[in-house]
Amino acid sequence: MSTVIFEIEGRESVKIDALPGENLLEVARRADVTVDAPCSGNGSCGKCRMQLREGSVESLRSHHISEEEWENGWRLCCCSKVMGDARIFVPDTASLLRFRMKTADLSSGREQEIFARLKQNLMDSGLSFTNGFKAVNLCMAEPSLEDTVPDNERLTDAIRECLGVQQVEIPYPVMQKLAKILREQNFHVCAKGLLAKNRFCCLDLCAAEDQRMVGCAIDIGTTTVSMVLIDLTAGEILAKGSCGNAQIRYGADVINRIIEQGKPGGRERLQEALIEQTLNPLLSGLCGEIGIQPECILRITVAANTTMNHLLLGVDAQSVRMEPYIPSFFSWGGVTAQELRLRANPLAEIRIAPNIGSYVGGDITAGTMACGIWDREEMSLMIDLGTNGEIVFGNREFLISCACSAGPAFEGGEISCGMRAVDGAIESCRMDPQTMEPIVRVIGNGRAAGICGSGIIDLIAELFRCGIISAKGKFIREGERIRTDSYGMPYYVIAQKEQSASGREIFINEVDIDNFIRAKGAIFSAVDTLLRAVEMPMDMIDRVYVAGGIGSGINMENAVRIGMFPDLRPDQFSYIGNSSLTGAYAMTVSDAAEEKCREIAAGMTYLELSTCPGYMDSFVAACFLPHTDSRMFTGMAQEEF
Amino acid sequence: MSTVIFEIEGRESVKIDALPGENLLEVARRADVTVDAPCSGNGSCGKCRMQLREGSVESLRSHHISEEEWENGWRLCCCSKVMGDARIFVPDTASLLRFRMKTADLSSGREQEIFARLKQNLMDSGLSFTNGFKAVNLCMAEPSLEDTVPDNERLTDAIRECLGVQQVEIPYPVMQKLAKILREQNFHVCAKGLLAKNRFCCLDLCAAEDQRMVGCAIDIGTTTVSMVLIDLTAGEILAKGSCGNAQIRYGADVINRIIEQGKPGGRERLQEALIEQTLNPLLSGLCGEIGIQPECILRITVAANTTMNHLLLGVDAQSVRMEPYIPSFFSWGGVTAQELRLRANPLAEIRIAPNIGSYVGGDITAGTMACGIWDREEMSLMIDLGTNGEIVFGNREFLISCACSAGPAFEGGEISCGMRAVDGAIESCRMDPQTMEPIVRVIGNGRAAGICGSGIIDLIAELFRCGIISAKGKFIREGERIRTDSYGMPYYVIAQKEQSASGREIFINEVDIDNFIRAKGAIFSAVDTLLRAVEMPMDMIDRVYVAGGIGSGINMENAVRIGMFPDLRPDQFSYIGNSSLTGAYAMTVSDAAEEKCREIAAGMTYLELSTCPGYMDSFVAACFLPHTDSRMFTGMAQEEF
Repeated sequence: MSTVIFEIEGRESVKIDALPGENLLEVARRADVTVDAPCSGNGSCGKCRMQLREGSVESLRSHHISEEEWENGWRLCCCSKVMGDARIFVPDTASLLRFRMKTADLSSGREQEIFARLKQNLMDSGLSFTNGFKAVNLCMAEPSLEDTVPDNERLTDAIRECLGVQQVEIPYPVMQKLAKILREQNFHVCAKGLLAKNRFCCLDLCAAEDQRMVGCAIDIGTTTVSMVLIDLTAGEILAKGSCGNAQIRYGADVINRIIEQGKPGGRERLQEALIEQTLNPLLSGLCGEIGIQPECILRITVAANTTMNHLLLGVDAQSVRMEPYIPSFFSWGGVTAQELRLRANPLAEIRIAPNIGSYVGGDITAGTMACGIWDREEMSLMIDLGTNGEIVFGNREFLISCACSAGPAFEGGEISCGMRAVDGAIESCRMDPQTMEPIVRVIGNGRAAGICGSGIIDLIAELFRCGIISAKGKFIREGERIRTDSYGMPYYVIAQKEQSASGREIFINEVDIDNFIRAKGAIFSAVDTLLRAVEMPMDMIDRVYVAGGIGSGINMENAVRIGMFPDLRPDQFSYIGNSSLTGAYAMTVSDAAEEKCREIAAGMTYLELSTCPGYMDSFVAACFLPHTDSRMFTGMAQEEF
Repeated sequence: MSTVIFEIEGRESVKIDALPGENLLEVARRADVTVDAPCSGNGSCGKCRMQLREGSVESLRSHHISEEEWENGWRLCCCSKVMGDARIFVPDTASLLRFRMKTADLSSGREQEIFARLKQNLMDSGLSFTNGFKAVNLCMAEPSLEDTVPDNERLTDAIRECLGVQQVEIPYPVMQKLAKILREQNFHVCAKGLLAKNRFCCLDLCAAEDQRMVGCAIDIGTTTVSMVLIDLTAGEILAKGSCGNAQIRYGADVINRIIEQGKPGGRERLQEALIEQTLNPLLSGLCGEIGIQPECILRITVAANTTMNHLLLGVDAQSVRMEPYIPSFFSWGGVTAQELRLRANPLAEIRIAPNIGSYVGGDITAGTMACGIWDREEMSLMIDLGTNGEIVFGNREFLISCACSAGPAFEGGEISCGMRAVDGAIESCRMDPQTMEPIVRVIGNGRAAGICGSGIIDLIAELFRCGIISAKGKFIREGERIRTDSYGMPYYVIAQKEQSASGREIFINEVDIDNFIRAKGAIFSAVDTLLRAVEMPMDMIDRVYVAGGIGSGINMENAVRIGMFPDLRPDQFSYIGNSSLTGAYAMTVSDAAEEKCREIAAGMTYLELSTCPGYMDSFVAACFLPHTDSRMFTGMAQEEF
């Protein structure tokens, strides 16, 4: 037995026993050391870097580790085996995972504005922002030998009288605290609950002054989880936050997660990672921020992809992955916070935005509802760039959707220096065609730590415009910023060691460019195939909504120039941020919005690309800058920058 | 720190650390050693006998321990303190607590006959024995690329078609197993659930051949818990069992339990003792006996006193005990097996027989329903002899009830050699007036281990008839069988050491007789006060139903002779066994019976004896053999035996 000590940057060290030959990533997971391993440990992403400080491990070489770094003990955790006692330094990627996301937390001015506009649109579309939640103050007579009505009847009578309803339901959790709270508050309490027709279901009893009723909207992404707490009466947002999905340790994409949940105890592990390690800490944090008890949260709405919905419920997702791709449910309700052990009122209903297909989930339904394309005459395209890419096209007459495996490149995955759109990410760049020197903008204005999706789009567009790379993404110029690593792989340095937050160069190499081109090709060919399916040319698209975690810094022109989006005018594009979260917000406070989501999901056609003839050809043709068929990019793509 | 080793008869020893001065009963409880301590550790019951085999404890003397026993190391556990390391022998009272109860398990011919008659009566009264449970076999098409309906819709459609209903509910626990069971069974399954109007709520999915739907009826007594499993379709009883209520370690009566649950963590401890340590083992045992999975149990009905109902739900019972005696609820429903962590189908509804007052509970409602007095012209009296005594009087026009603190004497509590009506109990006796030699009948026909309620009635009646004790219960004759203990207390030996199962004499002393006289006095004066309240003389009573754990061996004439029951003809009395359990059985299989219980509870008047003028006088007058007012016992009580 060997002893491995993980020295975690900025935190206490962790010591654990390990077997010689044991994979170091497995050891780290056992020790509960957070490791960013989006590729699920196959050595391809290069994110799980650690530094051997003492002792020995046996590691495979990787192009993600330079010669100099190797000399200094840097290794990929997933490609290393324990060989004896070891002391290993773990850089603080965990805190990066916990960073506030620019796109998701709605804290920047731009996001708030986007959010407010979407909400206004929904109200303009006639969706009333009302719900059945009701808080009533009750003043009951104290019991005496002459008035021996038991507590539950006393409460029921008081609610009946106050609200003029016939039926009053007092569920078990309320019954459990009934005697105590009535006596503590001298029979003067506030009853919170749902009023529907002639019936009041009491969800909580509090002190009379505590009338606050809070809802929670959550966007559960494969990579990132975003949450807002909402005043259910006023509709106002009380707190916002986001964090990484702790399931990441079981794989970066839904396929790996599904495989993992199929192993013995897997469903429980994945559910626990999501609920105990992701959602509950976030819930606690936000409740603490605004000083409320979790019991105040009376409804939770979840917008998530089909797989995440299954994993959240601990429902087997195996069949989502295997032909004929049949999930357990598209639309389903009937679970409470208590059943999922979510830190909220035990009776809080979990509203799940209905799924459309195995790979187009409730997040897209909620997003579609939020951006309002179901109410317009004009033909709209919505592109949601998450860990996967999902496309919706249509108008008030029809809606069709599909998903493509774009991979995690838009969120910085599978890119050497890629990162999410958080503080430290290069979110845009321009380049001098002569000197090849870049001018970058970094989120938070500090030193650069990596490049996020919008930055990569700019970088590739600029490298291409300046003739530094070819239409196939190969380096074709030489210069001070263009270097070659020890494997002979050329790369472009966008930030020198001295300018970077980590002290390492920030760069993009040919593998990164290739990964990104395949990701953008997947998006474009999905759009192409979807429009062919409805027999409409690209120029029928009136408007494009871009949603997701790519970052609000996205430059639409550049995205068109690299052939990622169809060749339309810049004013036809809108970045709508996290529209899934906006949709979940609406579903939380508005019963009409929830109803609308069901309508949208039930009415939307789902196109399974993998069984769609022509998709592969379209994809291959799109893996080019901007496209093999240059006639598809004759407008904006050809204009002078 | 001292080490205490408990050597438990017939089981493995238990070793535990204890602080010097720590109470030995507390230490035993910490070590999970089952100790019968009905008096809750105040030294009065003498049941917690243990033998010090090595080391030392400091103990108080007690009249429950003879001089000779003291010399041999016998001590009362609750009156002993740890003084250092000790090795202590614990007699196997635990297995006694687990004995099958003669009165409750319906296994004797007499009980079955009583049960069948009560059921027939209910049907004669027009209560239909039907319910909404339904099991349907479904054969669904397997999904394909052409038929991509998700699992829950596929199931819903199949149920709709099969049953012709509109709404189908698939709750969370069914959703969780849906994908797995459909595929394991090749989409050919049995759906079990509740059908009501246009709606089917699916409670379970099984293999097509498994159509069994089982209900469970439980009588939760303060001392004893009895349970039957029932086929919900045929109404047939599948298994029966009973055991001691493991809450006994927290006190013998409801008052001590309420005090205990008021301590920090008390509600959880009491609930766990009842659910985890009493009901779940019993459920597992009975399921195993008939070879079913606990998931087959789709409904559980509980008949229990008001306090037990509160403790079962973990609802604070403090206010039951304190003026103005207001419980949290009389009638309430809406909890599932899953919420109580009962070992049954998670969705099984828990039906709770509605309570009538703080000290007349759902067990009495169920019993009243079962014995059918609500449907008759004749005036009936029902007397339920449990740890408390409850009385119901009335007919189809009116019903009135009250409770009296008779104490545990009828179940053998507070009687030196008292025990419950299980194997080994002396259940009846006759005595030769000359020789004073007894002839006894022992349950199970083995050696006597103690005396149960019916045996004590006979014994006292015979001692009185033979002039051995006075009307005040004092010994007034001398003889070989009448002895005096080391405290000068006279006692009568009913079984010599050689004849007894334990090797100890079985006897009754003046304290026992006094305890029993006060218990019977409480019952008689309650009846007396109840009839005065409705201004009816005793001879208005047409019929007396005696229910409860006193034992089917009860001799009604003797009970009248000692002044326990009103002075009526023998043919006016019926022993109806555990009528609460019969009632719970009916409520489980019959929706009409449940409805009738609600009607009975809502319509019954509750008389609070403690605030009733005249009750104390009546009680004092009744503490005499048969009564201070001999005019009340001129009939049967005076007849020759």
